Amino acid sequence: MTSRYFEDWTEGEVVETRGATLTESQIVDFAMLYDPQPMHIDKSFADAGPFEGLIASGFQTLALSFRLFYDLAYLTHSNIIGVGLDEVRWTAPVRPGDTLRCRVEVLSLKESRSKPDRGSMTFKLTALNQHGTEVMNFRSISVLRKRAAAAE
Amino acid sequence: MTSRYFEDWTEGEVVETRGATLTESQIVDFAMLYDPQPMHIDKSFADAGPFEGLIASGFQTLALSFRLFYDLAYLTHSNIIGVGLDEVRWTAPVRPGDTLRCRVEVLSLKESRSKPDRGSMTFKLTALNQHGTEVMNFRSISVLRKRAAAAE
Repeated sequence: MTSRYFEDWTEGEVVETRGATLTESQIVDFAMLYDPQPMHIDKSFADAGPFEGLIASGFQTLALSFRLFYDLAYLTHSNIIGVGLDEVRWTAPVRPGDTLRCRVEVLSLKESRSKPDRGSMTFKLTALNQHGTEVMNFRSISVLRKRAAAAE
Repeated sequence: MTSRYFEDWTEGEVVETRGATLTESQIVDFAMLYDPQPMHIDKSFADAGPFEGLIASGFQTLALSFRLFYDLAYLTHSNIIGVGLDEVRWTAPVRPGDTLRCRVEVLSLKESRSKPDRGSMTFKLTALNQHGTEVMNFRSISVLRKRAAAAE
């Protein structure tokens, strides 16, 4: 069991995820369903555009980054709910064949005032491509169980 | 052509999208790929949990809401790029069979200082279910072409 409960995190610590390669099919498939802008689904259009090629929907980069974080298995038994996202910024294009990995830094930990079995963790996630270029970053707040609550 | 360029928007105006029904299959399929938390993929677990049933990944609600906005076709020829998202908040669970629609309010319009062919639009998107309950809201910034630039 590798879950990390509220008490198992420390402000300032950083964890890193494994990588995942985003293929052209994945980019087009996602975009056809959720973000059918030509820069994400039309190669000819995209080649002639400002990014000189297809780029991934920012919503896909966001979701994939969360998956990479979740795959560390730290949140498996401890995550109660995600409250939201703040200052999501797409800072560089993600292209077919790019491999993303994420760095997650714990910004703050706060005990719940009303519910003694939990606390909230604010973290900053930064997604990087295979060249080490930052492609996206955001802050997020998750409500995590405490270890004692999980043992009940 | 129903595209709306930078000059075609007014601060304070509100547009409404059509609806889309999110099925159980769609919720589980999305979550298996991007957000495989048991509350999104395991019905037995979810039935016994705090939401008393499966709920959609917040990342799916986010992406689907953008699709509904994009389907109005206002951004088809005018959207240059999305800069980011601010204060994304998931305020109520989205369940299988729920029908979402969105209300989009233009908060501010700013001409670009460096590039005369464009400006940025900040909008607030609110997603509502079939009962009129708000399930999510966020602010976003899009860079839009001006009509003159598009005619060139």
